[in-house]
Amino acid sequence: MPRYKLTIAYDGTDFHGWQMQHDAVKGELRTVQLVLQETARHVCRENVRVVGASRTDSGVHAEGQVAAFTIERDWELPRLAAALNSRLPDDLQVRAIELVDERFSPISDAVSKGYRYAIAHSRRDGLLPPLFDRHFSYWTPYPLDVDAMHAAAQHLVGEHDFASFTRVNHGRESTVRTVHACTVTAEHDHRCRIEISGSGFLYNMVRIVAGTLVDVGRGRHAPDHVRTILDARSRAAAGSTLPPEGLCLMWIEYPGSTP
Amino acid sequence: MPRYKLTIAYDGTDFHGWQMQHDAVKGELRTVQLVLQETARHVCRENVRVVGASRTDSGVHAEGQVAAFTIERDWELPRLAAALNSRLPDDLQVRAIELVDERFSPISDAVSKGYRYAIAHSRRDGLLPPLFDRHFSYWTPYPLDVDAMHAAAQHLVGEHDFASFTRVNHGRESTVRTVHACTVTAEHDHRCRIEISGSGFLYNMVRIVAGTLVDVGRGRHAPDHVRTILDARSRAAAGSTLPPEGLCLMWIEYPGSTP
Repeated sequence: MPRYKLTIAYDGTDFHGWQMQHDAVKGELRTVQLVLQETARHVCRENVRVVGASRTDSGVHAEGQVAAFTIERDWELPRLAAALNSRLPDDLQVRAIELVDERFSPISDAVSKGYRYAIAHSRRDGLLPPLFDRHFSYWTPYPLDVDAMHAAAQHLVGEHDFASFTRVNHGRESTVRTVHACTVTAEHDHRCRIEISGSGFLYNMVRIVAGTLVDVGRGRHAPDHVRTILDARSRAAAGSTLPPEGLCLMWIEYPGSTP
Repeated sequence: MPRYKLTIAYDGTDFHGWQMQHDAVKGELRTVQLVLQETARHVCRENVRVVGASRTDSGVHAEGQVAAFTIERDWELPRLAAALNSRLPDDLQVRAIELVDERFSPISDAVSKGYRYAIAHSRRDGLLPPLFDRHFSYWTPYPLDVDAMHAAAQHLVGEHDFASFTRVNHGRESTVRTVHACTVTAEHDHRCRIEISGSGFLYNMVRIVAGTLVDVGRGRHAPDHVRTILDARSRAAAGSTLPPEGLCLMWIEYPGSTP
């Protein structure tokens, strides 16, 4: 049976994250997985089960989440994409569809992932938070030293034990991960973005990295303090977990694909 | 008594426009004027009546709307701005406050206004509408010739009878207005923006100008057809009224102020 790999994008503001969740009072919550799966069932008229690569949290956005499902019918790919998009709500889009091997797993076949964390720090008219992009960036009223943040980020690159950068009861056997690159770039209008890619990420890892880099940007720590935080292997050593709205899952790389 | 001039910005998505409106079923609708006035009453503990320069429609945004009110108390300006902003919802901001003459009228003292209309036209992955900026731009699936649109826009500059560019029962004595400048600029990722400034604008004028320029961009008319539309002095001659989400009131100029 044909298996389809979907690259999808969503504005996470009005979703309760990726993963299907049942609430005792509200019933099935509006999650990306639920909306995508129900739309696919409606369009394909088959019992579709959608698996996603990354369980993004409530409020987190995606430009390049990857999901997959297997159905009986052979669809012409552009037709399937158009049929899904015409039924999906305006905060969720299928950006690409490919036919993949029937053993393809969006989770275990992923080679690397890239995230972006967007930050606004003070504005020209005093200290007003962002207005038009308030759902897509974290706001801090403090001025940030972006060069210091970028220097600090370089200490994260490579294979490290990231135990300091995940929540205490993370439930993972190993907290060793490899970060391929981490850059902090200044943007116009007192904004900056953190871009980080790696072999895999622990729960809340990017949001704790962002909180730690903001501490450096505010001058609370020197850039090389990041090495001390890594060595501590303790959540208490790192900065706070920044809110979900600044985070966006940008891409996921698979063998043979270019991110 | 001191009179205060406020420069305000809002994300119009969740407002029923500027003007206070009473709905028979829903009661007082959530309008910018209502929210601002109630916040000012709460903060100032006086019976504030807010007057705005421009009655923006439901869904229309503002970076530089101007409003004014007179109260008894002399406030230190940054304190009044901070007190208002701390109470306003996150889709409405006071960007600046000035003390003005007690006869200042935001409506009749305005010298000129500037609007922007944002358009997205097709995307790299086929024909998907905008996702993250869908509340802030109009989407057309057709490719647009931005140079032709800019050339067409030049025919609008100057003093003209804009009867073709307002709704049929506009209720205005004269439909003659002066457009100071109108530019159409290409932006990254298949987007463009129309920027128009003038002495004053008729009801729906910018949205009808945008619809007419999109017709030119699609190749339905040559750029100089705009002159024929002006000469017709008939709403039927111009393009359609584009939706409100693409429109943003950018600034309003007053004597002695720089926009």
